[in-house]
Amino acid sequence: MTYREDVEGLDAAILMHPRVWEASGHVENFTDPMIDCKQCKARYRLDTLAEQISEKKKEKILEEAKSVDGYKNFSVLFDQIIESENDLNSKFELLLEDPEISKTLLTLINCPNCGTQGKFTEPRSFNLMFKTFIGPVESSDNVVYLRPETAQGIFVNFLNVQGSSRQKLPFGIAQVGKAFRNEINTKNFLFRTREFEQMEMQYFVKPADDKKYYDEWKQQRIEWFKSLGMKEDKLRFHDHPEDKLAHYAKEATDIEYEFPFGWGEIEGIHNRTDFDLSKHEEFSGKSQKYFDEESKEKFIPYIIETSAGASRSFMAFLVDAYDEEEVNGEMRVVMRFHPKLAPIKAAIFPLVNKDGMPEIARKIEADLRPFMKVFYDSKGAVGRRYRRQDEAGTPYCITVDTQTLEDGTVTVRERDSMEQVRVHKSELLQHLLGKLK
Amino acid sequence: MTYREDVEGLDAAILMHPRVWEASGHVENFTDPMIDCKQCKARYRLDTLAEQISEKKKEKILEEAKSVDGYKNFSVLFDQIIESENDLNSKFELLLEDPEISKTLLTLINCPNCGTQGKFTEPRSFNLMFKTFIGPVESSDNVVYLRPETAQGIFVNFLNVQGSSRQKLPFGIAQVGKAFRNEINTKNFLFRTREFEQMEMQYFVKPADDKKYYDEWKQQRIEWFKSLGMKEDKLRFHDHPEDKLAHYAKEATDIEYEFPFGWGEIEGIHNRTDFDLSKHEEFSGKSQKYFDEESKEKFIPYIIETSAGASRSFMAFLVDAYDEEEVNGEMRVVMRFHPKLAPIKAAIFPLVNKDGMPEIARKIEADLRPFMKVFYDSKGAVGRRYRRQDEAGTPYCITVDTQTLEDGTVTVRERDSMEQVRVHKSELLQHLLGKLK
Repeated sequence: MTYREDVEGLDAAILMHPRVWEASGHVENFTDPMIDCKQCKARYRLDTLAEQISEKKKEKILEEAKSVDGYKNFSVLFDQIIESENDLNSKFELLLEDPEISKTLLTLINCPNCGTQGKFTEPRSFNLMFKTFIGPVESSDNVVYLRPETAQGIFVNFLNVQGSSRQKLPFGIAQVGKAFRNEINTKNFLFRTREFEQMEMQYFVKPADDKKYYDEWKQQRIEWFKSLGMKEDKLRFHDHPEDKLAHYAKEATDIEYEFPFGWGEIEGIHNRTDFDLSKHEEFSGKSQKYFDEESKEKFIPYIIETSAGASRSFMAFLVDAYDEEEVNGEMRVVMRFHPKLAPIKAAIFPLVNKDGMPEIARKIEADLRPFMKVFYDSKGAVGRRYRRQDEAGTPYCITVDTQTLEDGTVTVRERDSMEQVRVHKSELLQHLLGKLK
Repeated sequence: MTYREDVEGLDAAILMHPRVWEASGHVENFTDPMIDCKQCKARYRLDTLAEQISEKKKEKILEEAKSVDGYKNFSVLFDQIIESENDLNSKFELLLEDPEISKTLLTLINCPNCGTQGKFTEPRSFNLMFKTFIGPVESSDNVVYLRPETAQGIFVNFLNVQGSSRQKLPFGIAQVGKAFRNEINTKNFLFRTREFEQMEMQYFVKPADDKKYYDEWKQQRIEWFKSLGMKEDKLRFHDHPEDKLAHYAKEATDIEYEFPFGWGEIEGIHNRTDFDLSKHEEFSGKSQKYFDEESKEKFIPYIIETSAGASRSFMAFLVDAYDEEEVNGEMRVVMRFHPKLAPIKAAIFPLVNKDGMPEIARKIEADLRPFMKVFYDSKGAVGRRYRRQDEAGTPYCITVDTQTLEDGTVTVRERDSMEQVRVHKSELLQHLLGKLK
């Protein structure tokens, strides 16, 4: 465990005052466009509808669109998108983004559920925040939202934390916690879920220092994934082009991991400027300015955000660690977790359940347990016990055998190399702590 | 950090399937009786309305009730309660629990808000679970609840955890997490809030062992609070009498702490029998039975629950640690946190900001920081810096002074005794780790 002197922890509320989400823009803008099939009532996100239509069908629809009466009204944009470098699916999605083109295309699309053609409602905005009511009356006065991100909880607590911690710029506030989004389509296991865990750090800086700290955090954060063993060739930055930046961002990048289903964002690093604190100042009527003692100036700090999905990162580490390899003609499944991430750090096996071996093994277990999560297993052949721990990703297996009875040494078998060294049981704790550091 | 081999950790979902809350009885029974004043629309919990009526007024109302027409219909129970050993407020609450008596009493009570007499609605049940909707359609089919307790998340995951951890009875599953209750009246700071943190452990045992483990956990849990420095005379058990037990409990006790506003529950220990797993078996249609390899029997385990409020415990530790004392004619405020709970473990002060003292102090700070949360302070007189750390509850203050420049020793001042010892800076880390262990 290492503490940074310039980062404070926080556990903000999940149910915050609804004005927070007005200030952040979530009430107005955190929406997906939705359409319903009038025939079967199935509901679709307009922006991902294209995924549910076959390639062949898409080509046919685009061809047909050209003979529709209204074609001349949107032909310029239409042709521009069709002739762009994008793949067919992206072209289709871009076309659906335009209200006029999408109106025409929807008349040509068959409902992916019931097959009925062109019987869709107008697109409507659906807010992704879960809402509930404070108190027994379910009226609009009493609506509160489950936070759709942890970031706003940090922003509204900026001055509370700064004042009580006596931090000076630059400094950060970090938080790990649950967030909730009422996703229409959850998918890819943990990748898109309605309830998920974020780990965020908002770093408050002088406006002139924004570029410096943006670059610094961008580098530090990708290094963090690598330092925990994530494969370098599965990681990349996806810098957002200027014309695609979110409304609050001056510069933004995603750290992406190559999942079996493709590249997916596991963390975003953003230069959010003074957008958030300015909005909260405006909506709360409370100054969010910081007084800089050196320059004697008051100003709203800029924010560099590092926003990681804890659930997504967990899944990336899981996928990254999975391996199969042939050992002596048999296949073994092994989770190659970095020792820091392994749920069990060491397993202890007595070779046989007699001759005092279980007693020695239990003693080792008891000695190690205060310092690390350990697992005792005395069942079955040692080879099978190794395999079980390989599957759990346990980096070290300790076996008490006949030689232990003679000279007090045990074998320590390393998960990945499967190499074994003999260590005296009295030196075992130090040996393992050295490896796990 | 110490791990128990017989307790596994869990982080269950906040939004679970609504059937879970039908099985647990929360949908039907987790309610408060509510009344509204028809005049001013103020809303009250019927069961705590008595608290808002003065003693004198209560006496007057009880006197008047005897002359009401319907008195003869409920006079037996009425007189029995009036003549009981309870205090006036409890008598009043008991009377309000009876539907018929409460109907009469409400005609005599003035609204605590607007003063209008007897214009209350009929009592209605108000469910304390926050509800929201999965998906864009706000229909009863799509209702989900925010968990009002973490316990059910453990119950429904019992077999998942048991299977993957290969635990045998007795073993426990522990969880720290948020829970939500739509309380009408929040009160006493952190004591009753709508969003709060629980820390629970559910210990699964053979039915015949229930008493043994109930007694054992009862003792272990109160020892836990004491071991972290909570004053013994502020702690007590409140055993629930048999006729007051919750529907799921065979035996139950609260650990109570004496807050400035009176005794309040900070943890409950319950023998929940096989009630919960039986209900989940019934509602899910999935067997919740455990196969005992020794006896070759299949049965539903009993559950001994230790359910602590993390927010309430936090507040109890805070209240318990607060102290004021006169030192050299001045009052100091000091938080006497157990070192394990102190947010800052050590503060480092250079006596003056010159002669190389800041450099030595910064070096000490950097050496300690990987192992504990430290705070560097070089501003103002040392006496004032000590006071600031007393108020934050920092157990150790380290000062670099002129003697440090000569022999490398620093002073370590202990918060409570205010005694100072000199320790060589090279031995400081070991010295502190020994104290913090």
